[in-house]
Amino acid sequence: MKKNLRKTSAIIIIGNEILSGRTQDTNTSTIALWLNSIGVVVSEVRVIPDIEDIIINNVNHLRKVNDYVFTTGGIGPTHDDITAQSISNAFNLKYEIHKAAFKILEAYYKPGEFNDGRQKMVWMPKDANLILNPSSGAPGFNIDNVFCLPGVPSILKSMLGGLKNIIVGGKPILSHTISLRTVESEIAKELTDVQNNNKDVEIGSYPFFQAGQLGVSIVIRSEEQSEIDKCNNEILKFTNKKKIEVVVR
Amino acid sequence: MKKNLRKTSAIIIIGNEILSGRTQDTNTSTIALWLNSIGVVVSEVRVIPDIEDIIINNVNHLRKVNDYVFTTGGIGPTHDDITAQSISNAFNLKYEIHKAAFKILEAYYKPGEFNDGRQKMVWMPKDANLILNPSSGAPGFNIDNVFCLPGVPSILKSMLGGLKNIIVGGKPILSHTISLRTVESEIAKELTDVQNNNKDVEIGSYPFFQAGQLGVSIVIRSEEQSEIDKCNNEILKFTNKKKIEVVVR
Repeated sequence: MKKNLRKTSAIIIIGNEILSGRTQDTNTSTIALWLNSIGVVVSEVRVIPDIEDIIINNVNHLRKVNDYVFTTGGIGPTHDDITAQSISNAFNLKYEIHKAAFKILEAYYKPGEFNDGRQKMVWMPKDANLILNPSSGAPGFNIDNVFCLPGVPSILKSMLGGLKNIIVGGKPILSHTISLRTVESEIAKELTDVQNNNKDVEIGSYPFFQAGQLGVSIVIRSEEQSEIDKCNNEILKFTNKKKIEVVVR
Repeated sequence: MKKNLRKTSAIIIIGNEILSGRTQDTNTSTIALWLNSIGVVVSEVRVIPDIEDIIINNVNHLRKVNDYVFTTGGIGPTHDDITAQSISNAFNLKYEIHKAAFKILEAYYKPGEFNDGRQKMVWMPKDANLILNPSSGAPGFNIDNVFCLPGVPSILKSMLGGLKNIIVGGKPILSHTISLRTVESEIAKELTDVQNNNKDVEIGSYPFFQAGQLGVSIVIRSEEQSEIDKCNNEILKFTNKKKIEVVVR
């Protein structure tokens, strides 16, 4: 793909629970699929611990070299939720009560239930834009090109739709997968030729195991359906010739 | 935890299929759980594309600031497998046929089947140490403090055992989880007090949904069982007082 023309984004997963291996991250895939659908390439993902200096350094580096940065995690009410404070410091902004967020949560909770812990969730960088949360009230926030979302996958997912008109992408990045009953080394040479003939298309090759048998999925990615079709035909031409079975996964 | 005394590792996931969102990474969790069990903390994970300059820059940065670096992906036979060549260039080492790896794969395949595609898998940085592969023959490799493993999760998993005597860690990092039928904001204040009383212990708080009900898992991590027990008692003391139910997950 013509990468220099593409809008890019980095994703920062903030959370010791991913680094310890206890929890499997699924937010990367959720955000990446959504960004691809609106024509934004994910250039890099970093998983970092709940440590303020590390959050600041990563945010300040990645926001300079990407059009967008998404963070997940660390915006809840407990002591290990330090994302809002860290982002305030990264941008040299005051960390303060966000009045609109306060009103949202005040209305969301029953009278008397909007306690100190919950009030922590309305402390944000000064003049942050809110990212509304249709699942559980507490909003995320956006400063400049940095978008801060919660770590709970179902809540995060529910908030992406609200960003659709804010993130300016490009043509959606289309992808097509051909799964074959073969092993990579049987097709490596021919696949290299197809890649060399189609330099603007991204072709990946991924082995899999299914029902006790080996296979390879070839993934073709481009913003042009015609280029995907051309590669697809070139691949099927050599796999037919070699009598390699196409399988459905 | 006393982080400055700990051995640390970074993990680099090399693969466009993770950045596109098509594939969910599971190798981070596999490697991280294993490293924790032998007393090595994962300081950072980066997911990067199959682009040589980016691989080189990330490897050369992360190997300087960590005791160990693990890479996954990009050591197969196809055109998008560029890890071995990139690592050679990162270390200014010749990229050449590894004689011992050649012998392993020559013996692994039937006569005549050790074709050009498969032979690509024995090209490595000069004098690399092999990481044996009990699943599918093709070894990974190690140069200095960098360990290169394949991307296929089951194969990667089968290769970690062989590294046990090579990676020098510390005391295993122990962890204990208390799952509670509550929401974070109900316990945020008391949990902060427990964390402040036990600064060498890492306490994380993670909301969950189970069978339609909300809950919070509190994860206590330390290398000292006695410190975990102390925190556990302090947490149960305030949750009992607040009549918060402990649940089994």
